[in-house]
Parts: sequence; C-alpha cells; structure tokens
Amino acid sequence: MHKLKQSRIFTLIEPAPVILVTTCDGNKNDVMTISWTMVLDFTPVFAIATGAWNYSFAALQRTRECVIAIPTVDLLDRVVGIGTCSGADTDKFAKFKLTAMPGKLVKAPLIKECLANIECKVVDLIEKYNIVVLEAVAAYEDPERKEKRTVHAVGDGTFIVDGRMIDRRKMMASKLPAGI
Amino acid sequence: MHKLKQSRIFTLIEPAPVILVTTCDGNKNDVMTISWTMVLDFTPVFAIATGAWNYSFAALQRTRECVIAIPTVDLLDRVVGIGTCSGADTDKFAKFKLTAMPGKLVKAPLIKECLANIECKVVDLIEKYNIVVLEAVAAYEDPERKEKRTVHAVGDGTFIVDGRMIDRRKMMASKLPAGI
Repeated sequence: MHKLKQSRIFTLIEPAPVILVTTCDGNKNDVMTISWTMVLDFTPVFAIATGAWNYSFAALQRTRECVIAIPTVDLLDRVVGIGTCSGADTDKFAKFKLTAMPGKLVKAPLIKECLANIECKVVDLIEKYNIVVLEAVAAYEDPERKEKRTVHAVGDGTFIVDGRMIDRRKMMASKLPAGI
Repeated sequence: MHKLKQSRIFTLIEPAPVILVTTCDGNKNDVMTISWTMVLDFTPVFAIATGAWNYSFAALQRTRECVIAIPTVDLLDRVVGIGTCSGADTDKFAKFKLTAMPGKLVKAPLIKECLANIECKVVDLIEKYNIVVLEAVAAYEDPERKEKRTVHAVGDGTFIVDGRMIDRRKMMASKLPAGI
C-alpha cells in the first residue's frame, strides 16, 4: 500500500463509490457496506449516513474511529454480501475472505483486497439526520492493482460501474483546491 | 417530462452524479453545479453541501426551495461552465442555453435539457458543516432522452462517465425499500 498525499484523499470519496467501513470494538473487527457518503471539505472531511440499524454503528460511536475501504467492481458480490448480513452473528472478515491489515492511527483494520483505505476519526454525530462526520487522518492506495473501476449503487439493487474518464482540468483550473 | 413515483426519486441521487441546483430569487433564475450530495432517507430526503461561496446559496436560504436537475454526459461542458462562473454577474440560463420550465410546487425552474428534475423544499440548514437538508416533493424524467449516462466528479478536474449496469436485485431483495 502506497501512502496518498493528504490533498488528494477527498478524490476517493468525491465520485461517491460504494464503500466498506471497518470498525474494531476492541475484540473483533466488523465491516459494513455504505453508499450514502459526501465530501464536506477538502482537508478532507466526509459525511456518511448510518445509524443503529447497522450493527457496527455502536463500535463507530464508541471508538470514534473507522477505516473507509474502497472496493472495486471485482469485489461487488462480496460488497453486496457484506451489506446483507449482520456483524451481530457473522464474522464478516472470515466469511468474505477479507484480509485485515493494521492501520497506523486507528485500531480499525484496513482491507488488503481494496483499492484504497482511509483511516478516519469521528469528529461529530448529527443524530437528527444519522450523519457521521469523519476526518481522514491517513490514506493508502494499492499501486499494483489493475482493476480500478469502482461501483455506484442506484439503490434499487442495481449498480453502475465506472466508465471512461473525461479530463476537464484546464476548464476547472480556477476552482480546483491547492496541491491537487 | 414524465412524473416519477415518489419511492424511486432517491435513486436519482443515490449514485451521486454531478447535479445542477436551480433557484429563483423572485426576479431571476440561477443555477449552480454541485458534486457533494448524499441520500439521507428513502422518503426521499437529501443532503447537499454548499454555502455562501455559491452566489445562489442566498436564494436557496431565503426561498427555502430549489430544483435538482440531473445532467448527462453530453452536457458536461455546460455543467463545468456553470460551475466556474457566478450568478452575481452572469445570466447562466442565457449563457449556457438552458430552457427553464415551471415547476408545480416550487418557484425554482426545471431544466428542460436535463434527464431528470426534482422539486425540493429546504427542511434544514446545518450551518456548522454547510449542509442543506432537502425534501423532494416531486420529480420528473424525460422518457424520450437517449443519453442517460451521468457523470461523477473526481474533484481534480476529471470526471467518470457511467459505464455498464450490474443487477443484484435478487441478492439485495431483503434490504430494498418498499415500492421500489
């Protein structure tokens, strides 16, 4: 895993791929699938929407730490599987053959099989809307990975895979954050 | 424009395409480009992140209404253009040749050229994080439109176009909202 510079971390979340969020409650690791995410600041600060209906929300709330792992399309069936069972009765890392790797600044694990991993601290919980505000403290990308296409949930059980890239850097130069 | 049933409206925002947000301050229409969006509830309720740095935020704050218009890839250069100039000194509907159509429940205009339009009411402003909470009150899709691929901003001036669709409705049946 290659460390990503801080100014580029938000670009992992800005396109809003389906993500995995890992936690560690002190005894065991858990992971949930999340589609509802949003960038709040380039520094970077993110929002995710989750709540007590997700088993690992309790660990997220108590430890105030998590890792956002970015899966690619080859992992889609595992991602859907993770999202349709519960950590209450399932060791998801074992069931879905995920390799937990230690983070540096948080106890929640990185997922080796993913394209990128972001270590995050919880900075706020907006209970009224089930919004968790996260600050990214470090991120890593796997430079060896050939499959880089992520997936976007439509919400009805279908997913859109990343297609081609269009470059509008010149047109947008005046609006891009520094150091990107 | 074909009316979309309420239970499917959130599927326009869940994949997190770049959107246009229109407002009407009573005298003139304005439009801004937004990439930071998130679903908060299937009913549907959305969050968008914006603030006073966007000229039309003042109209959004005062009128507590807007329209979210969903552009497709053929409109990308207009979308980037809209995002890199200001309504303070530009009539963006004229400059970018957008056709304003009247909404039914809000004064902000629909954009005829877009794939879909969602009439929204502002239900909350979370000032600390520049989050605007929106409730969708009606939505429409253009059934005649052949180009349906939306774009996702990476945040560095590049954009990812929608690729192929993968169907996992059966695997996800237990988790899908009613009436989808």
